Amino acid sequence: MEHIENDSCFEGLAVNKGVEQPPSVNPYLNRMRKIKRRQYTAGEYIEGILKGDISILSQAVTLVESNLPDHQALAQEVIEKCLPYAGNSIRIGITGVPGSGKSTSIDVFGLHVLKKGGKLAVLAIDPSSERSKGSILGDKTRMEKLSIHPGAFIRPSPSAGSLGGVARKTRETIVLCEAAGFDTVFVETVGVGQSETAVHSMVDFFLLIQLAGTGDELQGIKRGIMEMADGIVINKADGDNIEKARLAQAQFKNALHLFPPTMSGWQPQVLTYSGYYELGIPEVWNMIDSYMEFVKKNGYFNHKRQEQAKYWMYETINEQLKEHFYRNNEIKEMLKIKESRILSDEQSSFTAARDVLDYYFKK
Amino acid sequence: MEHIENDSCFEGLAVNKGVEQPPSVNPYLNRMRKIKRRQYTAGEYIEGILKGDISILSQAVTLVESNLPDHQALAQEVIEKCLPYAGNSIRIGITGVPGSGKSTSIDVFGLHVLKKGGKLAVLAIDPSSERSKGSILGDKTRMEKLSIHPGAFIRPSPSAGSLGGVARKTRETIVLCEAAGFDTVFVETVGVGQSETAVHSMVDFFLLIQLAGTGDELQGIKRGIMEMADGIVINKADGDNIEKARLAQAQFKNALHLFPPTMSGWQPQVLTYSGYYELGIPEVWNMIDSYMEFVKKNGYFNHKRQEQAKYWMYETINEQLKEHFYRNNEIKEMLKIKESRILSDEQSSFTAARDVLDYYFKK
Repeated sequence: MEHIENDSCFEGLAVNKGVEQPPSVNPYLNRMRKIKRRQYTAGEYIEGILKGDISILSQAVTLVESNLPDHQALAQEVIEKCLPYAGNSIRIGITGVPGSGKSTSIDVFGLHVLKKGGKLAVLAIDPSSERSKGSILGDKTRMEKLSIHPGAFIRPSPSAGSLGGVARKTRETIVLCEAAGFDTVFVETVGVGQSETAVHSMVDFFLLIQLAGTGDELQGIKRGIMEMADGIVINKADGDNIEKARLAQAQFKNALHLFPPTMSGWQPQVLTYSGYYELGIPEVWNMIDSYMEFVKKNGYFNHKRQEQAKYWMYETINEQLKEHFYRNNEIKEMLKIKESRILSDEQSSFTAARDVLDYYFKK
Repeated sequence: MEHIENDSCFEGLAVNKGVEQPPSVNPYLNRMRKIKRRQYTAGEYIEGILKGDISILSQAVTLVESNLPDHQALAQEVIEKCLPYAGNSIRIGITGVPGSGKSTSIDVFGLHVLKKGGKLAVLAIDPSSERSKGSILGDKTRMEKLSIHPGAFIRPSPSAGSLGGVARKTRETIVLCEAAGFDTVFVETVGVGQSETAVHSMVDFFLLIQLAGTGDELQGIKRGIMEMADGIVINKADGDNIEKARLAQAQFKNALHLFPPTMSGWQPQVLTYSGYYELGIPEVWNMIDSYMEFVKKNGYFNHKRQEQAKYWMYETINEQLKEHFYRNNEIKEMLKIKESRILSDEQSSFTAARDVLDYYFKK
């Protein structure tokens, strides 16, 4: 049931069931504790970030990713103080299934962006246990050229917690990166989970990497993602594959025409390129530049940013309301029993919900 | 920002802002009070429903739609007792923009279903103020033939409250109708709001009515709905319009091939028909029958029903958690102030959320 899995009502649950829960929020944290590095003050963090000090930025991100109350309080103070200096980047969401050549693409897209100067942050959202499946997002070694480029800051996905929590941390990290002078931010997802909705709510442009072919290659990508895309780019358009890629381009173009118009008024484009042979890269970037010009002119850029800012307040509230409820052990036990009663038709979904809620609000 | 509007995090808010709030939940309620009809006991309701008494069924639905605590308690008791007798219908969601000929289509689809005998319930979900825009869903006069058919029960959408609340009432009404022996249930929506996600979570088959043409006709339909459809049917395939409808059919077929496979393993079909001239109606129904056979054989039918039952427990919980928070007047005031602070970059979305939550949980 793709719909049900897709629904945000299961975010809270995701924390409780089936999701790998590493003991600490971030492997960096343990290291940080071991080194017993002196904790910076909020002022020191902010000063360092505004100077563009990568080491301090990196530690501030670790702080954001920590769930320790002290760290969280300090992190929030730093984020708040960075806010007036944030907002000046172009934020691009990039998604594509494993096998679509996403890492190579981000590597060459990133280098293309950095040719004009400026600084690029590559972040990722991957709340599931992708880690154990061997597709660590944001892994520096996947982006050979970017990882040694002085203008690039690559940061893997925060690894634990619900999607809502992980996405929020990435959203907060964007603020820090922008305050540190990064003028382009990539947010990467794998395109198989529900992360894309969260990413869509923090970026200006949503880029979907596809491959030629309409069969197995699409198996992995989640339904509904295509309609979010401001641009679809078909990778591996090289050698014998060029014709297939062009055919796919035509098919996607036709499909996009059947979709209703976007809120931005922008007609999503479909392009082909080759990440490996570095073909068609400037064209992809020209598309993104055209989009930015278009939405800045018609006011949608600012409108979307403002809607996103409000969205994150409400999203944070809703996430915390659920978190507070679902992390309660007695509630967890009750829900287990209620589920089995519902499945055996002994109780309706609605009175089951009411019973658990009555218990919660009485407490 | 279609995504943000689409997110369920705004359901709670929808109650507070911009949504028409009639003084009473249902116009029927006032009438009921005026008549001072003796209130049935739960046992009487259940007996009447199980006998298929339409008048008692109708009053039970009114009870479900009422927000009065007494009515709610009684309604929940009735639903619970009906549960063992429910579940035996085929539930079909039907959506299409105004102008797609949805009412006429439901009229002829319904008559087709009833030819074989059995009973049909037509319900609707329309949480917004469509009422004032003149498109009252489920309005009996829109379905000329069905409305006078003894085997049909047509019920307009519950009119007030958040989408979550309205959808839940429709979901509960399905239980009552099934216990009353209705073996086909249509759930109708307008396809322009976020109701389709809710409908998708309570039906076995999701039918999307479209028109030929790829321009303005699609303007109204919400992005993402096409990917939910188990079948797309193109109306008004008659006279001069046949060729255009066939072309649209081919286009939609191609587009569907670009989508990833459905969870059910079913390949969504695209058919043309004419509701007005009653052409192609059996073919549409054969498609739905084939789907049912397919998903009953591969186990997806039951799997989906069970997932839906669990979904409604969690959905009800999440909705109530938000409702409890957002209906608080002090919280409403705080949120207004926070929104303006966020939009003027004085505060981050995250600390704004934290401040309001701190206040809520302290109380």
